[in-house]
Amino acid sequence: MRNIIIDCDPGHDDIIAILTAIAHKEEFNILGITTVAGNQTIEKVTNNILKVLDFVGVKYPVSKGYSTPLVKPLDVQPLAHGATGMDGPQIPDAVSKPTGMHAIEFMKKTLMEAEGKITIVCIGPLTNMGIFLKTYPELAEKIECIAIMGGGVYNGNTLPKAEFNIYHDPDAAKIVFDSGVKIIMAGLEVCYSGSILLTETEKFAEGGRISHFVYDLMKFYQGYAIRHGWDRTAIFDAIPFIYLMHPELFKAGEYEVNIETDGKYCRGMTVVDTRGYQGELHNPKTVLLQADREAVVKILFDSMAELDRVYG
Amino acid sequence: MRNIIIDCDPGHDDIIAILTAIAHKEEFNILGITTVAGNQTIEKVTNNILKVLDFVGVKYPVSKGYSTPLVKPLDVQPLAHGATGMDGPQIPDAVSKPTGMHAIEFMKKTLMEAEGKITIVCIGPLTNMGIFLKTYPELAEKIECIAIMGGGVYNGNTLPKAEFNIYHDPDAAKIVFDSGVKIIMAGLEVCYSGSILLTETEKFAEGGRISHFVYDLMKFYQGYAIRHGWDRTAIFDAIPFIYLMHPELFKAGEYEVNIETDGKYCRGMTVVDTRGYQGELHNPKTVLLQADREAVVKILFDSMAELDRVYG
Amino acid sequence: MRNIIIDCDPGHDDIIAILTAIAHKEEFNILGITTVAGNQTIEKVTNNILKVLDFVGVKYPVSKGYSTPLVKPLDVQPLAHGATGMDGPQIPDAVSKPTGMHAIEFMKKTLMEAEGKITIVCIGPLTNMGIFLKTYPELAEKIECIAIMGGGVYNGNTLPKAEFNIYHDPDAAKIVFDSGVKIIMAGLEVCYSGSILLTETEKFAEGGRISHFVYDLMKFYQGYAIRHGWDRTAIFDAIPFIYLMHPELFKAGEYEVNIETDGKYCRGMTVVDTRGYQGELHNPKTVLLQADREAVVKILFDSMAELDRVYG
Amino acid sequence: MRNIIIDCDPGHDDIIAILTAIAHKEEFNILGITTVAGNQTIEKVTNNILKVLDFVGVKYPVSKGYSTPLVKPLDVQPLAHGATGMDGPQIPDAVSKPTGMHAIEFMKKTLMEAEGKITIVCIGPLTNMGIFLKTYPELAEKIECIAIMGGGVYNGNTLPKAEFNIYHDPDAAKIVFDSGVKIIMAGLEVCYSGSILLTETEKFAEGGRISHFVYDLMKFYQGYAIRHGWDRTAIFDAIPFIYLMHPELFKAGEYEVNIETDGKYCRGMTVVDTRGYQGELHNPKTVLLQADREAVVKILFDSMAELDRVYG
Repeated sequence: MRNIIIDCDPGHDDIIAILTAIAHKEEFNILGITTVAGNQTIEKVTNNILKVLDFVGVKYPVSKGYSTPLVKPLDVQPLAHGATGMDGPQIPDAVSKPTGMHAIEFMKKTLMEAEGKITIVCIGPLTNMGIFLKTYPELAEKIECIAIMGGGVYNGNTLPKAEFNIYHDPDAAKIVFDSGVKIIMAGLEVCYSGSILLTETEKFAEGGRISHFVYDLMKFYQGYAIRHGWDRTAIFDAIPFIYLMHPELFKAGEYEVNIETDGKYCRGMTVVDTRGYQGELHNPKTVLLQADREAVVKILFDSMAELDRVYG
Repeated sequence: MRNIIIDCDPGHDDIIAILTAIAHKEEFNILGITTVAGNQTIEKVTNNILKVLDFVGVKYPVSKGYSTPLVKPLDVQPLAHGATGMDGPQIPDAVSKPTGMHAIEFMKKTLMEAEGKITIVCIGPLTNMGIFLKTYPELAEKIECIAIMGGGVYNGNTLPKAEFNIYHDPDAAKIVFDSGVKIIMAGLEVCYSGSILLTETEKFAEGGRISHFVYDLMKFYQGYAIRHGWDRTAIFDAIPFIYLMHPELFKAGEYEVNIETDGKYCRGMTVVDTRGYQGELHNPKTVLLQADREAVVKILFDSMAELDRVYG
Repeated sequence: MRNIIIDCDPGHDDIIAILTAIAHKEEFNILGITTVAGNQTIEKVTNNILKVLDFVGVKYPVSKGYSTPLVKPLDVQPLAHGATGMDGPQIPDAVSKPTGMHAIEFMKKTLMEAEGKITIVCIGPLTNMGIFLKTYPELAEKIECIAIMGGGVYNGNTLPKAEFNIYHDPDAAKIVFDSGVKIIMAGLEVCYSGSILLTETEKFAEGGRISHFVYDLMKFYQGYAIRHGWDRTAIFDAIPFIYLMHPELFKAGEYEVNIETDGKYCRGMTVVDTRGYQGELHNPKTVLLQADREAVVKILFDSMAELDRVYG
Repeated sequence: MRNIIIDCDPGHDDIIAILTAIAHKEEFNILGITTVAGNQTIEKVTNNILKVLDFVGVKYPVSKGYSTPLVKPLDVQPLAHGATGMDGPQIPDAVSKPTGMHAIEFMKKTLMEAEGKITIVCIGPLTNMGIFLKTYPELAEKIECIAIMGGGVYNGNTLPKAEFNIYHDPDAAKIVFDSGVKIIMAGLEVCYSGSILLTETEKFAEGGRISHFVYDLMKFYQGYAIRHGWDRTAIFDAIPFIYLMHPELFKAGEYEVNIETDGKYCRGMTVVDTRGYQGELHNPKTVLLQADREAVVKILFDSMAELDRVYG
């Protein structure tokens, strides 16, 4: 079993991803959840995860992190996630509270107390992760790997060539990517390749309480795809979790990846040297390239069914 | 027949491209050739084209252009083209001289005197073209289109995501791409797709005087591919000429293209918005995507055979 | 006698400066005037100088130059110079026309035909001068010196630390300052130190036709100072001309000067190394520091009186 | 009495500054000392302060902070401070140890536990202070003011216009200067104006054990001034402490100050809008401009004499 910390900015796909992790108790031991400003403000994203944990009926320590990127200004994404960051479902306000520890304090304490190594799954901007590594570089050796939803090999979604999580805090991303810690990067291509079809979404409506909640999330979330004329929606943040459980479902490559922190058109680009122009690999990342779409979608459905079974 | 000015920095592939144009007298009326620093210094690239024109036995006005990029420092490419910029063949020194006009003076005079519109084929850094358009914006309307070898949709060759011609003078490229003049962009992908196989090169050795000269160019030029373990070589600069003659051999798309002028990793990147993230097209470019390789290679062989026939 | 070309963007102080030069026929042989976008658009500033020359009754070749900076966007200054760039006086429209040559063509022709060296006095953004030097570097040796109104040692007027002429086209300024041509820099400090008091301005109203015209210019122009609560107005562009005639009226130093082309707060700053931190001087500029204010003001009055005498 | 935290990178002048603070027990209650990489590596500067505290015979909690700037690479200053960061005196190795808390943890704990407000005196790069304010913005209200040695109004010492502490971490400095916390800035000008003459230094040799230690510091430290041909040395880091005790010895102004984080020549410049070009003050800083030199020097001598008396 893998001990993990989840660093997130929920966000519809963050929630579905975290639910998927919760459903797999034999694969993931969730030590805690940290939040970071991104899809919405730090207050909103923290509130969202607390509400959902209460709604499901599970308890994990939730620690609030940074409210702004390292250097750049805050730039939330209401077009994709609505005014709350989790528009769509109606569930009660959170009763649970955050730990009172800052995200980087929680990471520090958890890594120091751990006997073995811990995996950190980062599915928001990398502000918490970057400042943690700058503050406590000696704890890098306690990190098994950092699995990231972020970046892209050839595509962007915020700028033509920049994905939101990296675009939002490229300076923190650079710290993480240059840290020497093992990085697994689930960029846009692999996420798109594991998309759920709009026609498949209806299946969530047939499930129990949790599946219905996910159905309500999807009805709002896939509006973005519908407005663009697409027939499917990527559940971006679920991909690194699914990879950690089932790497055999993915194609991946080992490449140098540099983060462009400046530039008018390329800020936040993950420059993946797929052609090996930089010669020998010094600090390669595991870059996921393609997923078995049907297997990914099945895991999502099965996860919610399992939660319905246990917490329904 | 198309009236053209060729703006170049020879360069092995520049020479093969220009020979291809010379071979097609019914398609191209070459009004003049302008040179620009890039693959080598302005003195060397100007000398190279003069030598080759003398060697073939043709006369075109050659006008020397800029010796440095608009803002960035000069950065020549001896690894690809050798110390002379055209290493390999041994041919006599040039007897012909440049016109004495600066490249932008030649462009001005030629466009002003032309009755119709003129196509400019740019196969080096865009310094001449960019400063020309800034100096004489009122003459933009006399330009039919600017066909460029430069940039890439997904790839680079100087930086992981930046192609040499645009990397070398991104500020001039930005002027050209933002000018509103119709642009045809032959980037790395289409050029790679139209490559000549190393095994095919030998066929040049079976031809006459000009074919043999091209064979000697290729023996040096494909060394770069051999050192990288590739089985083929792109004749980059020939692609825009072949497209102008035979657009039916190419796949292309219409996209917004922005030039990144800054950034550590992305300077000189042609940011092609293939996914239409910027919405409605305001200033689309014709971006060539794929070539019919065998047809391209056949045109190259046939061109040299034709030159052998006429000038051999 | 000094042969000069005047490169300008009139502009109230440009006009007073040029009138001062015209009044000193024994010191300045004006070979021509080139215009550049800056205080207002290229059309307006060219029109302004033509109108004034006609109004005075003198003829010099006027050649229109660049309408936009090298890289940055156009950023005219209506707050200082009004909608026309020369608000205030009412004089007839120009009858004279520009030469039809571009500014850099006129500079080239004039320098090539000159027997000796020529001084170029640049009192607008350095776009013409910068692109000229990049296009015809071999003609730099025909330039005696470039006397510039621009920059500052400790102050700015557009940004806290950037003066307008350099701010407007820092990339062109960098070419000029790094060219190796002898540079005389009249920055903000020396110009402020040579200001005319608001109370002195009235003296122009006592003169003839030309003095009255300058009085009308001043009434508008000093509005800027009045709005800021100052008791005096710098006639910036006149300073380099007065220095060339009377260097004994000035304190100056020899310093390395670098142009900052980027940065949010420092774009267009002339970084004058007054403390010699960069060690040995490699490419020092003559930086004017302080003027004899009363002598400067007397020259301005005497110049207009002389023009009244000759052209009144 | 003022409760203070000292954030430093000793450094000769840091040590003299801290000794001055220690000598004034009625003015300063030193709650702790935090260290940051700057003049030398984090290991060396932490070791330096521990050694000196042991040597004097005082105990304060010392907490180690960041080993690299927020975004830029580490750039230590051996020319000014030697290989150890405190070359010159020979004193025993430290027996005391750091607290084990990170600098920002110590700041957090101290501010949270304090009843009133605390002054933080920052005499190194602002990495600790900047990341602290980003991590715990809610604790800004517990900070009385941040008194900084850094920047300059007209001068630099690392670049012609950039002072070392700000140059070394301009991105952290920007966070601090834009935070809204009251800032007192002791830049280069005020520090230079409070310099000690080389001839005055000898007086330290007449004192006791601590004065002799400072004499040994000065013999090395003023070598920099001697090599530059200067007749005096600024004890930069002592100035903000002396100002906090005796503001009547200083001239100061209230100005907007922006930090330039980029640019080739201006990175790390404190852009002080002395002329009020940005209009109404939104976030003014108290910028010290000039010191009463003789009074400053007397305080330094008296401080070491007091330490000799108490700890000698």
